[in-house]
Amino acid sequence: MWGGIEAGGTKFVCAVGTGPDDLLEEVRFPTTTPAETIARAVAFFRRHHQAKPLTGVGIGSFGPLDPDPNSPTFGTITTTPKPGWAHTDLAGAVRRALGVRVRFDTDVNAAALGERRWGAAQGLDTFVYLTVGTGIGGGGMANGGLLHGLIHPEMGHIMIPHDWERDPFPGCCPYHGDCWEGLASGSALEARWGKPGDHLPVDHPAWPLEAEYLALGLVNIICVLSPQRVILGGGVMAQTALLPLVRRRVQALLDDYLQAPAIQRQIETYIVPPALGDRAGVLGAIALAQQ
Amino acid sequence: MWGGIEAGGTKFVCAVGTGPDDLLEEVRFPTTTPAETIARAVAFFRRHHQAKPLTGVGIGSFGPLDPDPNSPTFGTITTTPKPGWAHTDLAGAVRRALGVRVRFDTDVNAAALGERRWGAAQGLDTFVYLTVGTGIGGGGMANGGLLHGLIHPEMGHIMIPHDWERDPFPGCCPYHGDCWEGLASGSALEARWGKPGDHLPVDHPAWPLEAEYLALGLVNIICVLSPQRVILGGGVMAQTALLPLVRRRVQALLDDYLQAPAIQRQIETYIVPPALGDRAGVLGAIALAQQ
Repeated sequence: MWGGIEAGGTKFVCAVGTGPDDLLEEVRFPTTTPAETIARAVAFFRRHHQAKPLTGVGIGSFGPLDPDPNSPTFGTITTTPKPGWAHTDLAGAVRRALGVRVRFDTDVNAAALGERRWGAAQGLDTFVYLTVGTGIGGGGMANGGLLHGLIHPEMGHIMIPHDWERDPFPGCCPYHGDCWEGLASGSALEARWGKPGDHLPVDHPAWPLEAEYLALGLVNIICVLSPQRVILGGGVMAQTALLPLVRRRVQALLDDYLQAPAIQRQIETYIVPPALGDRAGVLGAIALAQQ
Repeated sequence: MWGGIEAGGTKFVCAVGTGPDDLLEEVRFPTTTPAETIARAVAFFRRHHQAKPLTGVGIGSFGPLDPDPNSPTFGTITTTPKPGWAHTDLAGAVRRALGVRVRFDTDVNAAALGERRWGAAQGLDTFVYLTVGTGIGGGGMANGGLLHGLIHPEMGHIMIPHDWERDPFPGCCPYHGDCWEGLASGSALEARWGKPGDHLPVDHPAWPLEAEYLALGLVNIICVLSPQRVILGGGVMAQTALLPLVRRRVQALLDDYLQAPAIQRQIETYIVPPALGDRAGVLGAIALAQQ
C-alpha cells in the first residue's frame, strides 16, 4: 500500500492504494493553516497505516519547493506567497509523523508521472504536463526523468507577447504582472472579465483571447523542450470549447516551421487533456511514492 | 582518432582528434552547395582516414534536422530555408563516403556536449547552450541526455514581449516575424540599425535593447527547463559589454521569484560564455562521435 498527497494551494487530496484501479480511499479537504492541514493528512494516513502498513508516501505539492533529496531544505515549500506556508517542511512533517519514506516533488511533476504510468504519456520520455487553474503550473519529463535541474520548472512565469490594445488588462501576477500566469490563469480570467471562467458563456470574447495566450505559452514550451506530447489540464480547461481553439492557434503560430506530423496533422493527439482527469495529481503522488 | 564536423549555415569546421588538447588538424571553409561542401569535408577526413583510421565521425549541424537514429530520414537536414540544403542527407553522405559510423545532432546540442565534456558544463545534467549569431539556436541536456523529444529544440523561435513603441522594428524571421530570433539575432541587429553588431559602438542604444530581448528569452528558457547553467555564445556576444547587461536584466525580470542563489547572487557563474569559445561546435562534434 502507498499513500499519495496532492497538496494544492486550495485543497489537499489524499489517497491510499496502488493505482487508478485500486484506490482504497480518497479524501479531499481545504488547505487551511499548515499545522491543521498536515494534521488532517497525517490522521488519514495513520488510520490506514495502522490497519495495513504503508510502504511510502508521495507528495505532489504547490511551490516553489525544494525537491532535491540532497539539500538541507529538501521537502519544504520555500517562498510561496501563500500566507503561512512559506518554509513549511511538508515532507519532513509527514515522514516524522508516519515513520515512512516520503517522496516529494511539484504537483505538476507528480501529475506528469501519474500520466506517464497510467495516462496520456505512457511510453513517452519527453513530455509536458500543464495545469491552468488559479495559477499556471508546468512539469514533465525529459529523457525519462522528471524535470528538475536548478530547482524545478516554473512554466507559469514565462513572458509572452501582450497586445495592450487588444487586452488592456495589466496582468495579475504579483511578481511579474503580465507573465503567462498573470495573463492566462483562472485568476486572470476572473480579474479581467469580472467573473470566473465557468460563468463566461462559450461565445464570450474571453475564450479566443485565452486560447491565444495559452497557445503563445505552449509554443514557447514546445520550442524549448520539444515535448512528444503536451497534457493540458486544470479548471480553466473545463470549458471544453477552449482546447480546440488552443490547438488551432498553436498550429497557426508555429506556421509549419516545425515539420512534425504530430503538430501539423495530428494535433488532437499532441495537445490532450489528462487521461486521469482531476485524479492525475493524487495518482501521480502515489506513482511518486512507488519510484 | 575521431572526426568532427560543425556544419554551419555560413561555414563548415572539420577537425580530427580526440579532444581540445589533441586536435591533429582543423579546417574551415564556407558553406556553398551541399555537393561541393560535403565533398570538401569528405576529402579532408579521407586523407586522415587513410593515414590513421577514424573510428567515427560526429556532425553538429544547422537545422531543422532529423536526429532520430530510428527514423528513415535520420541524418538529413530537413526543412531549412537555406537554398539547396533542404532534405540533404548529410550524415548518410559522410557515412557512405568514409565507411565509418556517423553521429548526427544539432550544432547546439553538439556544442552543449562539448561544453559538458571539456568546458563550462562539466558535472551538470541539465543545462542550456545558446548561440546568438545570424540566428538564435539552443540545445542542451536534461537529466544527463541531450534534448530531443519530438524532434529537437528550436529555442530561437519562442515568442517574447515586443514593445512596438520602444522598438518599431517588425522582426526578421521569415516564419514568425518578431519571434526571439526575429528580434534579437545578429540579422535582426543589422536589419534594425543598418549595420552589423560589430560596427555598433558600445554605448549604442542597440545594446540595452538587445540585452532586454536576450534576457526575456533566457527567462523563458529558465522557467521551462530550470537549467543549472546557461552557456551563451555566438557572434553577437563578441560585444563583451552585452553579457553583464543580460545578466542584470534576467535578475530584474525574474524579480527574486526563483529563490536560487545561483541566479540571485552568483549570476556571473550562472550565465557564462562557452569555455571552449568558437571551438565548442567542432569539439562537441568530436564528443558526439565518441558517444
